[in-house]
Amino acid sequence: MTELNSSNVVVLCGGVGAAKLLQGLVKVVNPEHITAIVNTADDLSLHGLHISPDIDTITYTLADEINPETGWGLKEEGWRAMDMVTMYDGIDWFRLGDRDIGTHLFRTQRLSEGASLTDVTHEIKTKWGLKVNIIPMSDDPVRTIVTTAKGEELNFQDYFVRLSHDVEISEIRFEGHQTAQPTPDAIPLILNADMILIAPSNPLVSIAPILSINGIKNALQSRRDSVTAISGIVNGQALKGPAKRLLEELSYEASANGVARIYRDIAGTFVIDSLDKSETNRIEKLGMRCIVADTIMTNSDKAADLCRQILSDKMNLK
Amino acid sequence: MTELNSSNVVVLCGGVGAAKLLQGLVKVVNPEHITAIVNTADDLSLHGLHISPDIDTITYTLADEINPETGWGLKEEGWRAMDMVTMYDGIDWFRLGDRDIGTHLFRTQRLSEGASLTDVTHEIKTKWGLKVNIIPMSDDPVRTIVTTAKGEELNFQDYFVRLSHDVEISEIRFEGHQTAQPTPDAIPLILNADMILIAPSNPLVSIAPILSINGIKNALQSRRDSVTAISGIVNGQALKGPAKRLLEELSYEASANGVARIYRDIAGTFVIDSLDKSETNRIEKLGMRCIVADTIMTNSDKAADLCRQILSDKMNLK
Repeated sequence: MTELNSSNVVVLCGGVGAAKLLQGLVKVVNPEHITAIVNTADDLSLHGLHISPDIDTITYTLADEINPETGWGLKEEGWRAMDMVTMYDGIDWFRLGDRDIGTHLFRTQRLSEGASLTDVTHEIKTKWGLKVNIIPMSDDPVRTIVTTAKGEELNFQDYFVRLSHDVEISEIRFEGHQTAQPTPDAIPLILNADMILIAPSNPLVSIAPILSINGIKNALQSRRDSVTAISGIVNGQALKGPAKRLLEELSYEASANGVARIYRDIAGTFVIDSLDKSETNRIEKLGMRCIVADTIMTNSDKAADLCRQILSDKMNLK
Repeated sequence: MTELNSSNVVVLCGGVGAAKLLQGLVKVVNPEHITAIVNTADDLSLHGLHISPDIDTITYTLADEINPETGWGLKEEGWRAMDMVTMYDGIDWFRLGDRDIGTHLFRTQRLSEGASLTDVTHEIKTKWGLKVNIIPMSDDPVRTIVTTAKGEELNFQDYFVRLSHDVEISEIRFEGHQTAQPTPDAIPLILNADMILIAPSNPLVSIAPILSINGIKNALQSRRDSVTAISGIVNGQALKGPAKRLLEELSYEASANGVARIYRDIAGTFVIDSLDKSETNRIEKLGMRCIVADTIMTNSDKAADLCRQILSDKMNLK
């Protein structure tokens, strides 16, 4: 295990699924050797605040402060600010707890002072006592815009939260990705990592934005043998969120194999759940090694088991 | 009293002193006939939020929601957001309670949507059920900048809150006032009011910014006979805040007479406290009528008595 423990591991991350994986990974690898590169295309400006939902979900989860009932926000939360917004007939569908607002206040102030999102993300995670390196995919604004089947363009959180992703989508794009630069450490970290994991996050709205940033996809392609992606689709279903529906609406196959096809150019290894064992052959035909594992991370011990299996497999390859 | 009740009264307002006066005035005059034109030069942007301290103090006081112990902020407040900002080593000297933050979230969002400060101030006071017309002096940014004796320039709240106004000042200016326009209704309301009051707010940092806005001073001069100013200095002392010290540092006389001299061009009548009765002659020599009254508003009944005396005096003049 010493060798595992000292590996440098980079994880491409969305929100909840990635946070669960990281909770396991820190039990297997020295947290100081782990970097989470986090999607920021579902960041939003609301009430004047810069809100970074995926970064916060990962930070709060690793700090053991996440609200276990919702999977987002902080535990021991209050709602006085939001109750006032409701009283004023303001925008209250994006629920911000009082403690959570404190994070957004600090982040927004630091950004207004000229700090980068990378700087302030580091400051926040450090104050929570976290050793894992948490970095946004980019310091530049990139925003997921979805086009509905009726032709309406929606900001991601309008689609995801306000409409509870209960609307048919015809297109997804990442506004600003053409000019956005990756956060400075992202590509060197990818190029030098012992292993790169793609978390079982939504491939189309959590991982795709990271891949859309200049240079990141190329860097991953050059490391394909060291990249392992974990399927977020198990037995044809997403464990959380609209991945299944989005895959179908955008003409992908809503299966582990469908996700593997999305990652085949950048990941040499693909992890599927035991329930999907029958897909092994199809995935291997894509030119990917296939690991069959118990991928449903009902607690951090199961997540650690999954990480241990994935990393051991890698070590055995050497 | 019927005649009093139906008068149209405009009040130039800072924060706490003006709020106390208005609490009395609404007992004497139909609130729908009262307009508060409020200083916004001590507004600030902090944590991404647009904060309007004087407007909020007046709104919360009239809504009977002000924190009676501090004179600012809301009662039944929580501090979870601010505690988080403290945890992050953020800016926590400007104390924002959780409920109060709700007001700033709503205001900032509405401004970002294109609403004017006048619009959103109206929306907020309406939600609190207030009939008094509360308007900012201007929808344009005007910011009080103080220069210390050592030559350092400070934003007003840095001086007032962070440094507890415990520093010597050599100059006060209102950045942006040259190009700021008064909120659209301000000048018509002044020109058509039955009576205009200048609240016993700080003449140099609460009332002076209002007077600095294009057209307001001229409008008041044209209505000088209908303008009554109330001294915020009693027995050589400010009831609250740094007015005494500021007057001295900027070479004004820290007395009722000193304040009267500041207002002599725009106010035909000046109200002094009984304790300052001996100043009557000096003030009358400035060409102002002088009303001697009990001006210390320890509760809203005493404030109402003061308003009744001031307005009755006006009516008797007719």
